Amino acid sequence: MSAAPLAPGSVIGIIGGGQLARMLAMAAARLGYRTVVLEPDAFAPAAQVANNQIVAAYDDPEALDQLAMMADVITYEFENVPVSTVEHLEATHPVRPGSVALKVAQDRLSEKAMAQQLGAETALFAAVNSRADLDRAMAVTGLPAVLKTTRLGYDGKGQAKIMTPDDADAAFASMSRQAAILESFVDFECEISVVAARSIAGAFSAFDVAENEHRNHILHRSTVPSRLDAAVCAEAMAVAARIADHLGYVGIFAVEFFAVRDGESHRLLVNEIAPRVHNSGHWTEAACAISQFEQHIRAITGLPLGDPSRHSDCVMENLIGNEVDRVPEIAAQAGTVIHLYGKAEARPGRKMGHFTRIWPLRSVPAA
Amino acid sequence: MSAAPLAPGSVIGIIGGGQLARMLAMAAARLGYRTVVLEPDAFAPAAQVANNQIVAAYDDPEALDQLAMMADVITYEFENVPVSTVEHLEATHPVRPGSVALKVAQDRLSEKAMAQQLGAETALFAAVNSRADLDRAMAVTGLPAVLKTTRLGYDGKGQAKIMTPDDADAAFASMSRQAAILESFVDFECEISVVAARSIAGAFSAFDVAENEHRNHILHRSTVPSRLDAAVCAEAMAVAARIADHLGYVGIFAVEFFAVRDGESHRLLVNEIAPRVHNSGHWTEAACAISQFEQHIRAITGLPLGDPSRHSDCVMENLIGNEVDRVPEIAAQAGTVIHLYGKAEARPGRKMGHFTRIWPLRSVPAA
Repeated sequence: MSAAPLAPGSVIGIIGGGQLARMLAMAAARLGYRTVVLEPDAFAPAAQVANNQIVAAYDDPEALDQLAMMADVITYEFENVPVSTVEHLEATHPVRPGSVALKVAQDRLSEKAMAQQLGAETALFAAVNSRADLDRAMAVTGLPAVLKTTRLGYDGKGQAKIMTPDDADAAFASMSRQAAILESFVDFECEISVVAARSIAGAFSAFDVAENEHRNHILHRSTVPSRLDAAVCAEAMAVAARIADHLGYVGIFAVEFFAVRDGESHRLLVNEIAPRVHNSGHWTEAACAISQFEQHIRAITGLPLGDPSRHSDCVMENLIGNEVDRVPEIAAQAGTVIHLYGKAEARPGRKMGHFTRIWPLRSVPAA
Repeated sequence: MSAAPLAPGSVIGIIGGGQLARMLAMAAARLGYRTVVLEPDAFAPAAQVANNQIVAAYDDPEALDQLAMMADVITYEFENVPVSTVEHLEATHPVRPGSVALKVAQDRLSEKAMAQQLGAETALFAAVNSRADLDRAMAVTGLPAVLKTTRLGYDGKGQAKIMTPDDADAAFASMSRQAAILESFVDFECEISVVAARSIAGAFSAFDVAENEHRNHILHRSTVPSRLDAAVCAEAMAVAARIADHLGYVGIFAVEFFAVRDGESHRLLVNEIAPRVHNSGHWTEAACAISQFEQHIRAITGLPLGDPSRHSDCVMENLIGNEVDRVPEIAAQAGTVIHLYGKAEARPGRKMGHFTRIWPLRSVPAA
């Protein structure tokens, strides 16, 4: 399992051309690799910095064959790549991570079931495929609860809160007969995530736990270190390691947890697993010697995983929509790393970039 | 002078497509700018990551017009761009830095004369345009001395040592009748450099002094902090600031100094000025919140200059020729940032990449 790493000049194929692919392509370039991006939009963020682009749909069979022909290893930037696409590619080419992780991450039921199977706690949940299921599910979870499509939801899309039994009909209708899951409402004190990597040979490496704040269901801010004590952070990393081993995962992934107050400490509930680089790991480019993007490239090319330790404490904030206009002001702040995505139009809710402010470890940032 | 900075999506034209242009293009992308590279080699390092490339000679008039048409601001990655090229462009477009700095940096005599005019010390020197000049020059400098072409020399090319008067004929012949300068041999304890930036509005910002070691006239290693005391480092930065103001410079530049032992401290002699990002500033990408490349992009686009302070001590080493084969081993070292240039062939003497090892400020690195 310790084959030589891909030589410099080898080609990494990336399915998807958004900002995550852009940052992966730049990390690949820094390690001397070339990139080809499969993405229907010729002006997508990643197309601007990749060596090559195949302008086609993610599931276009000819485009996939072309990608496979050009690339020495294939990866993806988002979990909504069709499983059939990855299965088709991995029959003949290395795809990292592969379809096993993708299948689990595409289904909230599988995700939660796996977490429980690996000894991690989750919210109470039940499958909902009919209106009658929803009544049974409410008995399991209690109220309030959240009804979610099992697939394709992100940034709060495909979700409906049920505060009282009277909300059930409308919530069920909003699922449009898609398979759904009802989850008990968790009274968490904070949300955290672990961004971690597993190598081809099975080595595991986690970046420090980030504490995340959302606004309108979109990540607003990640702070590292989090408020959690060392034992709870270690538990989060241990859960991530068990998930990675269970899936035979290769590359970077993120596990999001709810942290619930428990006396002097906290209990963790697995919320979501993302089989890719993750917005809550963007701070790594500013506060660590290597970023999550480089770590992913190292993992999938067979280079040794890099040192995930932090040289600085930090806080990362997203620039959503016209918040990008703040860049000149932010650029004047000390210890601040700005990263924009090359998107032409600052539409409301669109992630345009992010910035990370760093300061010395265990000190307090200036106001 | 405080015009609004170039908006994200604006285009930066870069003359030259080597690794310096590559790193500038990646820094520009991170700030949301687009890039177009003028470079005759379609597979050059920068072409791989830039948005667009014009494949043409650096002095091709049509290509220059095309560059000017596409770019909102133009810069260059090396000081051997023809002055006529920059003068042609700056007649109608912003070129940063401009031709004034380029002219001085292209001529060792002008460079040294300017340094002295600004109150900085240099080696003893004299112009040599004839064999008789060389005899007069040796009387000025004493021996040993170094005869150099005034123009186009780098990495030790175009230089001849004169240890005794017997070496004079051969040294003079080796100049092939090019204008030359004889410089006294400096018995320095170490070589240092300051990499600094000046903004359009005249703000000045210097990164910390790096101590540089060369092998075969090529930079081998830069260590930060240097062995010099704070007063000497401050003097180096002050000289750099006077040079920048004198030239009305915009962007990053480097000043290389010899440090000569002087009792308990050191005296500084200006050796060379490079009107561009510099190999001895590559460590900034690993040990500072922003790199020299980003600082250059900030300066020429009108963004505020970034915070140059270090979060870590560091040492940067170049990977020359097949030293690039060490990458998998280097990748396994803690706190190590690797940067390769995408060059296909590891020819002897060719700069293939570099790596920077970081460790906490003012501590001692592990063996």
